[in-house]
Amino acid sequence: MELETSPLALPFPDMPSIEGATVRIARARYKDWDRADLTYIELAEGTSVAGVFTKSLCASSEVELGRENIAHGTARALVVNAGNANAFTGYHGREAVEQIMAQVASHLQCPAEHVFVSSTGVIGVPLPKDKAREGVNAALSASPCTWEDAATAISTTDTFAKGAHASAIVDGKTVNLVGIIKGSGMIAPDMATMLGYIFTDADIAPQFLQAALETANASTFSCITVDGDTSTSDTVLAFATGTSGAARIENHDSPGADAFAAALNDVCRQLAHLVVRDGEGASKFIAVRVTGAASDESARKVGLSIANSPLVKTAIAGEDANWGRVVMAVGKAGEPADRDKLSIGFGGIWAARNGLPVDNYDEGPVAEHLKGEHIDVAVDLGIGNGRATVWTCDLTHGYIAINADYRS
Amino acid sequence: MELETSPLALPFPDMPSIEGATVRIARARYKDWDRADLTYIELAEGTSVAGVFTKSLCASSEVELGRENIAHGTARALVVNAGNANAFTGYHGREAVEQIMAQVASHLQCPAEHVFVSSTGVIGVPLPKDKAREGVNAALSASPCTWEDAATAISTTDTFAKGAHASAIVDGKTVNLVGIIKGSGMIAPDMATMLGYIFTDADIAPQFLQAALETANASTFSCITVDGDTSTSDTVLAFATGTSGAARIENHDSPGADAFAAALNDVCRQLAHLVVRDGEGASKFIAVRVTGAASDESARKVGLSIANSPLVKTAIAGEDANWGRVVMAVGKAGEPADRDKLSIGFGGIWAARNGLPVDNYDEGPVAEHLKGEHIDVAVDLGIGNGRATVWTCDLTHGYIAINADYRS
Repeated sequence: MELETSPLALPFPDMPSIEGATVRIARARYKDWDRADLTYIELAEGTSVAGVFTKSLCASSEVELGRENIAHGTARALVVNAGNANAFTGYHGREAVEQIMAQVASHLQCPAEHVFVSSTGVIGVPLPKDKAREGVNAALSASPCTWEDAATAISTTDTFAKGAHASAIVDGKTVNLVGIIKGSGMIAPDMATMLGYIFTDADIAPQFLQAALETANASTFSCITVDGDTSTSDTVLAFATGTSGAARIENHDSPGADAFAAALNDVCRQLAHLVVRDGEGASKFIAVRVTGAASDESARKVGLSIANSPLVKTAIAGEDANWGRVVMAVGKAGEPADRDKLSIGFGGIWAARNGLPVDNYDEGPVAEHLKGEHIDVAVDLGIGNGRATVWTCDLTHGYIAINADYRS
Repeated sequence: MELETSPLALPFPDMPSIEGATVRIARARYKDWDRADLTYIELAEGTSVAGVFTKSLCASSEVELGRENIAHGTARALVVNAGNANAFTGYHGREAVEQIMAQVASHLQCPAEHVFVSSTGVIGVPLPKDKAREGVNAALSASPCTWEDAATAISTTDTFAKGAHASAIVDGKTVNLVGIIKGSGMIAPDMATMLGYIFTDADIAPQFLQAALETANASTFSCITVDGDTSTSDTVLAFATGTSGAARIENHDSPGADAFAAALNDVCRQLAHLVVRDGEGASKFIAVRVTGAASDESARKVGLSIANSPLVKTAIAGEDANWGRVVMAVGKAGEPADRDKLSIGFGGIWAARNGLPVDNYDEGPVAEHLKGEHIDVAVDLGIGNGRATVWTCDLTHGYIAINADYRS
């Protein structure tokens, strides 16, 4: 099945290279296809690493080993396999990951736990060790390639390659951050089938990198949803090679810490939005802005209840300003809410305020807004100061076609 | 929009009349249609009542008043409005409900709180008081009609009328139970846009009727889901007229209590299944049987995580035995689970056992099972004795067509 490029796709941006991060790709042929499906990124000695992983209780061996090895704070290489998630494959699957780690570690003369591996694709089929071995061998001797090549090689059902970058001034010097990501279905907070990698030439202590990544994750990757489904393999890793020459950021108080964290947040938000833009069958990009909640976390849960509601998502697909379905989704969230203080709007226009339809509500401009590609849903709960924005896409025939009409 | 009858529809059964429960219908014309949309059921003096309601925090006035008045334990009448949910309509909406209660109470010379009202349909438009007044007047003077007439009159987007019955021997006498229900979308546990009414000629103390209804609800209405969306109006009420001549059931120890509770459970399960069979766009009826969970409640949550997963539901629509998606849904449920003890099967055949695909797994008979109309998904978590069965339907183009392509 050849998927059409999402109508919400963005062109791959011009991204700077990051000294100390060298990208190579190869064909492991994990599936019966003729494309690069193994990505190898070599990292300079002393590279710091941080990571956030799926909360699935059925996580893959890659995720289990990644969680363990993040604790060391150091990375020398990343290997990403596309076409096989190697999840639910027991000890066979774990052996395949350990083989890749050992093979790369032997090449780099580093500890195996400094090699990070991700896999994405079909569940339940152990990653074939021979293909992995040959693929890694081919990648080790391949010529360096671009970020776009890597973003393409890590993709599975994605319809376009996804990258984002930002920079920050640290210690008077410019540091660069680039990110690539894959994911389009099985996307929910706690990150779904989403693999994201961020590389920076800043010099960052692992603890601070981890803290900054977790903070960015909370308001970006954890605030997107396509279908509410969470994958067994989700991973976002951040690598800091420290090659920029800027002073090391040790903690929140180091000069440049705020600027770096802001740039990291920026890259994460861009990447998260790209995943929503490639949501299976998506025709509209939806921002759900919740204010007046009991707390920020409560606002996020209400936002996700709306963003995951099939009835809200189909209404928007049908360009129907059906605020009654939004009321329903607020009500089912189970978070503090008061029907008679609730306000709901679209595109900056309130349809209902304080529990009642707005007098003389003119649906015209709202209907016009709903025809656009970017839909803004505002919900004010009127009971506190908590706020959050959640991003999602609409639910269309395309989603059914991709997931039901064709076999995976 | 004329909806086609669900392929999973069942014919309306032959249902006995219940002495002391008289059904009448009328045309209130809450929408621009020419059909009965107001149902009035008069109940004998001394009728006991019990009820379970939506947990939505944005519930309608009907639900608020129903919750309050259930405490009295006595009912003389039920009025159901179809075409307007009267939800999110503030004090205007509440006044309309109170007007109906007062009007019927005046006719019956009974307290207003013995009159129960439900409304279903569009959200955000106050129930028009003049139409309600004329509709109730017309119903009060109409000739009695059948359960099927009532089941049709309470429907909104339903594609077939739904009824179920059972009987039990209490005190050597046969007591009858009949139920009618409406609902097809916005269906989730905590009951969604579902209105269900059960009538029996048994003589039941209100406290026991409430306890028996709550028990039945927990394993029936609370175990179905169509789209995970919960309505603002869900209501199930049970009325016992006590006209059968069988001895009164005061509590769990009364003779016939077990038999009555079993029959009530039977009617509730039948009614719940009918709602799933009319799930918007449904082409397959799916039972998800979860065993080996940490507790029954944990099993129910895992079952609902599977039954609400768009990826599982689209896979089944596509007749794809995609057990990897079931693993995903187990993992995201957040309930105790161990990847390496998890087993998954379809139609009585295990596809994966103890965290690994079954050796020499033959997809043939499973593929055959998936082609049928009744799909059985079995999940054994292998960690405890908790069990639950959850029922749902598949997610098809029909759901999108009903909810996106046409305005509600």
